[in-house]
Amino acid sequence: MNAVLKYFPILDWGKSYNKETAISDLVAAVIVTIMLIPQSLAYALLAGLPPEIGLYASILPLVAYAVFGTSRALAVGPVAVVSLMTASAVGELASQGTPEYLGAAIALAFLSGLMLVAMGLLRLGFLANLLSHPVISGFITASGLLIASSQLKHILGIPASGHTLLEILQSIFLHLSSISWITFAIGAAATVFLFWVRKGLKPALISAGFKPFAADILTKAGPVAAVAATTALAAALDLGSQGVRLVGDIPSGLPVPQLPRFESELWLALAGPALLISVIGFVESVSVAQTLAAKKRQRIAPDQELIGLGTSNIASAISGGYPVTGGFARSVVNFDAGAATPAAGAFTAIGIALATLFLTPLLTNLPQATLAATIIVAVLSLVDFAAIKRTFDYSKSDFVSMAATILITLFFGVEKGIVTGVGLSIALYLYRNSRPHMAVVGIVPGTEHFRNIDRHKVATGERVLSVRVDESLFFANSRYLEDKIYALVAAKPDIEHVVLMCPAINEIDASALESLEEINHRLSDSRVQFHLSEVKGPVMDRLQKTPFLEHLTGQVFLSQYDALCTLDPLTAHISEARTPKKTAQSDVWSGPEI
Amino acid sequence: MNAVLKYFPILDWGKSYNKETAISDLVAAVIVTIMLIPQSLAYALLAGLPPEIGLYASILPLVAYAVFGTSRALAVGPVAVVSLMTASAVGELASQGTPEYLGAAIALAFLSGLMLVAMGLLRLGFLANLLSHPVISGFITASGLLIASSQLKHILGIPASGHTLLEILQSIFLHLSSISWITFAIGAAATVFLFWVRKGLKPALISAGFKPFAADILTKAGPVAAVAATTALAAALDLGSQGVRLVGDIPSGLPVPQLPRFESELWLALAGPALLISVIGFVESVSVAQTLAAKKRQRIAPDQELIGLGTSNIASAISGGYPVTGGFARSVVNFDAGAATPAAGAFTAIGIALATLFLTPLLTNLPQATLAATIIVAVLSLVDFAAIKRTFDYSKSDFVSMAATILITLFFGVEKGIVTGVGLSIALYLYRNSRPHMAVVGIVPGTEHFRNIDRHKVATGERVLSVRVDESLFFANSRYLEDKIYALVAAKPDIEHVVLMCPAINEIDASALESLEEINHRLSDSRVQFHLSEVKGPVMDRLQKTPFLEHLTGQVFLSQYDALCTLDPLTAHISEARTPKKTAQSDVWSGPEI
Repeated sequence: MNAVLKYFPILDWGKSYNKETAISDLVAAVIVTIMLIPQSLAYALLAGLPPEIGLYASILPLVAYAVFGTSRALAVGPVAVVSLMTASAVGELASQGTPEYLGAAIALAFLSGLMLVAMGLLRLGFLANLLSHPVISGFITASGLLIASSQLKHILGIPASGHTLLEILQSIFLHLSSISWITFAIGAAATVFLFWVRKGLKPALISAGFKPFAADILTKAGPVAAVAATTALAAALDLGSQGVRLVGDIPSGLPVPQLPRFESELWLALAGPALLISVIGFVESVSVAQTLAAKKRQRIAPDQELIGLGTSNIASAISGGYPVTGGFARSVVNFDAGAATPAAGAFTAIGIALATLFLTPLLTNLPQATLAATIIVAVLSLVDFAAIKRTFDYSKSDFVSMAATILITLFFGVEKGIVTGVGLSIALYLYRNSRPHMAVVGIVPGTEHFRNIDRHKVATGERVLSVRVDESLFFANSRYLEDKIYALVAAKPDIEHVVLMCPAINEIDASALESLEEINHRLSDSRVQFHLSEVKGPVMDRLQKTPFLEHLTGQVFLSQYDALCTLDPLTAHISEARTPKKTAQSDVWSGPEI
Repeated sequence: MNAVLKYFPILDWGKSYNKETAISDLVAAVIVTIMLIPQSLAYALLAGLPPEIGLYASILPLVAYAVFGTSRALAVGPVAVVSLMTASAVGELASQGTPEYLGAAIALAFLSGLMLVAMGLLRLGFLANLLSHPVISGFITASGLLIASSQLKHILGIPASGHTLLEILQSIFLHLSSISWITFAIGAAATVFLFWVRKGLKPALISAGFKPFAADILTKAGPVAAVAATTALAAALDLGSQGVRLVGDIPSGLPVPQLPRFESELWLALAGPALLISVIGFVESVSVAQTLAAKKRQRIAPDQELIGLGTSNIASAISGGYPVTGGFARSVVNFDAGAATPAAGAFTAIGIALATLFLTPLLTNLPQATLAATIIVAVLSLVDFAAIKRTFDYSKSDFVSMAATILITLFFGVEKGIVTGVGLSIALYLYRNSRPHMAVVGIVPGTEHFRNIDRHKVATGERVLSVRVDESLFFANSRYLEDKIYALVAAKPDIEHVVLMCPAINEIDASALESLEEINHRLSDSRVQFHLSEVKGPVMDRLQKTPFLEHLTGQVFLSQYDALCTLDPLTAHISEARTPKKTAQSDVWSGPEI
């Protein structure tokens, strides 16, 4: 029973569902529905799809998420970044407006859904951790800029295309002569209005005596007002015949659910983009869900979220929609409007279905420029230049990954951008970890303590070299360890013993074990004995299962002091009173650092 | 001057060059030359190239390495694994025997050389560290099996092709009816003879009173004997006319040096394989060089080795050869025969050049089956099944990478195999590191010490949650930290303070900083204060440059005891005499583990 419960969170919250929660959910659903209609149309436009596809993608996915999702407030549906990624992936395979283009977008949602469900069942949610914050932040900033520039053509009323910043700008320049000035007037007015709604309306409403909650809801209704006003204007003045592109007739029926046909070649071509969309969508969705859950001390289960999001995408594909994920703006509205359970999402789905059935005729005269304006205003809020500066100040290595992600995304496309960012952040992490901190140590005279010879006044003999390594040993740093030890030994011809001090080593992987074997072997070729000291219990347990300890030319000492007493008692028993045989130059004793 | 010296190691060892070292080098060169002639012909055959290409690849590269290399004993030239990789890469683009095939092999050497030199100048030698030992070992074992099976066709005297185990075996089965029994007799006899030479001859010679050194040299001359005997046989019985494939006429001139023509499409197609060949060749070469250097307490400089190997490959391409690297067998022979400086390599180059000029007519009647036998016997010594068992016993995670490398190499080809192995070992490493060890801690009554509540009898209050994390925080584990903390807080509704104990945190990257901000923010949404304790100096310095400490709802305490005294003095001052408010169930006190 618990196993079933885990995969069907609805059985958990459904038990305590009552009239009160139902009313909260209904109110939230009405508000979210009103907000979602223009947004769904706009994002479908951004993805290069007919407007109704945006509506289809906002019905069944919400129901699927209500059954399988763990967040109480997350609202799934089309979002900006995933719409852009869809346009980029599908645009490689078919031309906009063709049935092949739509078919590929549906297949992309289906594949992405299957991948997410598989990742959820295999508990692969940790894969999302490979996207570092700076890479995500850079990717979203670059995507925002790309999306905004891609919508300029609708504001200007010109045809233009392209998936990279240069392509888009070049295409716009080529068509600049054919600007539709009426379209531009509508688009510019809508953009200015929506910016004002976002920045100026809410404070104005609050100072006019509205409660913050009401002010917030009214502000979120801004796009609806812009849609209503420009649609009425276009209908009244018959702007469609004057070169203003309108949304046009939207089929008013609901889609008939059907499984996408399996086409091996198409699916293979879409597999890479589907994986990227899945991971990006999951990261976006989970961070929204976690933010909202924390406000009510609720929990979300990341691996189950994969299943919730996956089934949503499968539901989207089955109902003729395209890839969806949990959106930030809509989820916050849902939360603020009082959604108590995922049922709010199901009610929203009913709202959108009703709108699809009955409201679409009203949208025939909606100018595309208005939708473009809502997109531009929404995505520019994603652009975060301050984060670039902040990352630069805090970590140069993170900044490099972020800058590469932004530049490659802008100039070579979204998929190459995200792959470069992830690859680079992993490479830089491995690079940092491939040079563990190592110190040659000597004894502090009169004590049993050992310290770095470069930082402290310590004594070392000519015959024993003691090296401390301050990290676990694994494939990326084991050869560095070898190099360092060979270099130290080659520099000191009198050395007869090397002692590796291991108090900070938590793990030795198979590569590092081979390196220790090599060090032991090569030192023995140079007639130097190799010893270990202060090996942790679990590490020693694993070493004892290998022949390494038999091959070891030296011994394993419990403490470094034991090692020195055995190998070079003269240096070990040196007193503070006597001048040590050899001390490091430095007089700096930098506090508790060892 | 030092900067120049660094890039021209020859200026270093050249200074002390004298008659004595010259004689040592000359003796070594004669021995290595004799060994290299059949080897070069055989590996060219393996790479699908005309036999003389193997000789060309053994002349100028040796001279280039003598100038730029840092190892005193390394002998560069064609080797088995790189020859197989060449055949695989070039076979994708052209058919064996065509000028395009040869041109692509030459371009591959040139590209690989350029990449190696670039990596050397950019000091990217650490990239080779990404190849873990189990992945290399698995790759070499699988390559050995692939190479041996690919040579079966020469032993059987049938045409066959393929780059994966299944393709090769299938192709052999299809042609089984056309076996040339005379060829098979020669090939089988040569194989058995060479195995005997390798396993039985040396002990036999030693027990017959030969010195180990002389026995070793005679053993290494086994292939030369096989070549001489079967060539004489083929000439005497005119086996060529009886269906035995012979090496045939080898052009006896030396190649005229010329730069490969730039062909953008070809070079682009070869870029990936060239990078893989470069890295694999470098790893093989450096490990051989390090092994030999250690025996004489000499040092090699890995970044300069990249330049040495890179110029060798460029030299190979210029003289019509294919990719080369430092080979194990020949380098050991060179070392054992007394090579004192890289000049031995230059003398060997002269030897091979003379052989190319004057000895090639003698090789016209050499059966290809003999060369195949020398390859099979050489590569089967690379196959190391014991390493698979050893890795399985020591580390399951390393075993997974190794097994995947072996299977993908055998069944999908060398390039996919190595890429899978590297990708998987990095992914598994990140996975292990994405779940840092964390413990909820409580105070040991009557002390100022804090221990894991699951392991020790400790006291914790209801209002303060103290969590210790035992690793540095970075992008792959920061979300795990968030999840864990939210889960702990969601489980205990009375908590008012969370204290993160940071004594083991050496670094906090930008992602982890964002996560700490998020934790702080979300806990504050749940009306919980967030505190840190025991933050290391350098970490604190970096945090102080960010606004995080201003946002922090709680404080940064110098010690965890300070934190508890401030936040929950009742629990902090609990004495051993009193029953603690709440203790963990476990009575186990497992020694010094904390």
